[in-house]
Amino acid sequence: MQDLDVNQITDAAIAQMANTPDPRMREIMDAAIRHLHDFAREVKLKPEEWLQGIAFMTAVGQMCTPYRQEFILLSDVLGLSRLVNVMHDASGREPEGTEASLLGPFFREAAPVVPLGGTIAHHAKGPEVMMFGQVVDAAGKPVPHAWIDAWQTDAEGLYDLQANNPEVMDMRGRVQCDEQGRYHVRTLKPLGYSIPMDGPVGTMVKLQNRHGMRPAHIHILVSAPGYRELVTALYLGDDPNIDSDTVFGVSSSLVVTPATGMADSPAPAMPSIRYDFALSRDDEGGGGRVGSDPSKLVPAG
Amino acid sequence: MQDLDVNQITDAAIAQMANTPDPRMREIMDAAIRHLHDFAREVKLKPEEWLQGIAFMTAVGQMCTPYRQEFILLSDVLGLSRLVNVMHDASGREPEGTEASLLGPFFREAAPVVPLGGTIAHHAKGPEVMMFGQVVDAAGKPVPHAWIDAWQTDAEGLYDLQANNPEVMDMRGRVQCDEQGRYHVRTLKPLGYSIPMDGPVGTMVKLQNRHGMRPAHIHILVSAPGYRELVTALYLGDDPNIDSDTVFGVSSSLVVTPATGMADSPAPAMPSIRYDFALSRDDEGGGGRVGSDPSKLVPAG
Repeated sequence: MQDLDVNQITDAAIAQMANTPDPRMREIMDAAIRHLHDFAREVKLKPEEWLQGIAFMTAVGQMCTPYRQEFILLSDVLGLSRLVNVMHDASGREPEGTEASLLGPFFREAAPVVPLGGTIAHHAKGPEVMMFGQVVDAAGKPVPHAWIDAWQTDAEGLYDLQANNPEVMDMRGRVQCDEQGRYHVRTLKPLGYSIPMDGPVGTMVKLQNRHGMRPAHIHILVSAPGYRELVTALYLGDDPNIDSDTVFGVSSSLVVTPATGMADSPAPAMPSIRYDFALSRDDEGGGGRVGSDPSKLVPAG
Repeated sequence: MQDLDVNQITDAAIAQMANTPDPRMREIMDAAIRHLHDFAREVKLKPEEWLQGIAFMTAVGQMCTPYRQEFILLSDVLGLSRLVNVMHDASGREPEGTEASLLGPFFREAAPVVPLGGTIAHHAKGPEVMMFGQVVDAAGKPVPHAWIDAWQTDAEGLYDLQANNPEVMDMRGRVQCDEQGRYHVRTLKPLGYSIPMDGPVGTMVKLQNRHGMRPAHIHILVSAPGYRELVTALYLGDDPNIDSDTVFGVSSSLVVTPATGMADSPAPAMPSIRYDFALSRDDEGGGGRVGSDPSKLVPAG
């Protein structure tokens, strides 16, 4: 293994990993090497460009904290998160099940429990919206006592994790449905917002002349025993960026428009969103989600 | 741009970058998106695997310090550094010019200047080796007053950056050739060594059942006005890993064996290495190197 040329290096790198005991790890790394090398050969990557790439990846890693996950943000703006999400959805969602969307980098476990009819806005102020509906299975049968996590930006377009004191949770909560799977919860009308632009991913997005905006949305995670965890989001149809989400999250089945005077709203005078979430059966015994609590992804110390 | 499927997402991501003003950045990112998405589609990357990847990349970034560059190490063990290096070499080295090799993550700028005949071993102890020869151009004509940077491990197989006090430089130095391009400098016989195994890259290498060893070598950087910077290394032919370098650095033209009794050695009784470095003309006005001082790659603070 000497004098490896531009093509032999790929086979040599794969050969050095051929004794990986875990077959899936071997398969993934084999493909990673081939595509990474193909990329470098295709663009004839130069040393100074390679070094810029190293510096960029280093800066992305160093920007991560328990409150910020810059690598998830990078995956999002490159369309990788959407791709993994869509593949996951295609591999286990029942045809009538609600479509998935990106979890994003702002999910937190152990959000405060909110009673039915309560609000997830504890500190933030702004115009209220009622969100209500039912959790059902793919055949339309109610799923009793499902849990719904909802989280979103405040009226300034910021998540609690981006606020001065990120330890204080706000604009997020967990609601448990009743025995008919029904839920209703109050929140604020979410605002469209820019992804964080003060880090290396923001710098890249600016160099690409992208607007960096996401349309207004409410993140949703629905879970119930025996069902596949549903990670999705509801997008507000009147947002100017509904067709140009910088992280490619929008599916038309997830677009909603708050309206007043809805007969079945628990508060018809309040702008209301009705959305029924249809869960797919869990055939895999657990299934993953594209995203995670950022505090779990940064090594301590 | 809604409802993007597993193939449309790639075109959409590329379209969002289509207004990048810098054409080379646009070209590189276009290819990066395609190969990244092809990779994810080929292996049908699952959310939990994607998340492991995010956590891995985050850990690699967080392991970087001004004294340690874990992303360069990752690039090295994946064969990417060798590939970029070989492409760079192929694009500007004259046929008779010395081959390049990896700079690696242990180069430091401003190493101490050592007089001709001096040693780069200021603190470390071990069997001495004399290294001597001439810096010439690709036609064999001497290059006067060229500078040679040499750096290597000590007799324990560690670089100064890995020692208890990484601020103290040792086993590295800069020598200026005489007007005939001749140099001679003393060092210690380098030892083969394991790449750092206490970080995420080491964990990966262990999970791949790789030995993680590099054969003994002396890093060399030669520079002279008007010539392309030569980043290379001399590898010791008697090292058991000479044919299985875990970062794929060895070229046969760079393999040397110290010998005593060499008639032209400045110290024939000492094991000596004679190597003449042949510089290529600099047609690009600069040209990069695969690697850099790690302190330059970690954002301050």
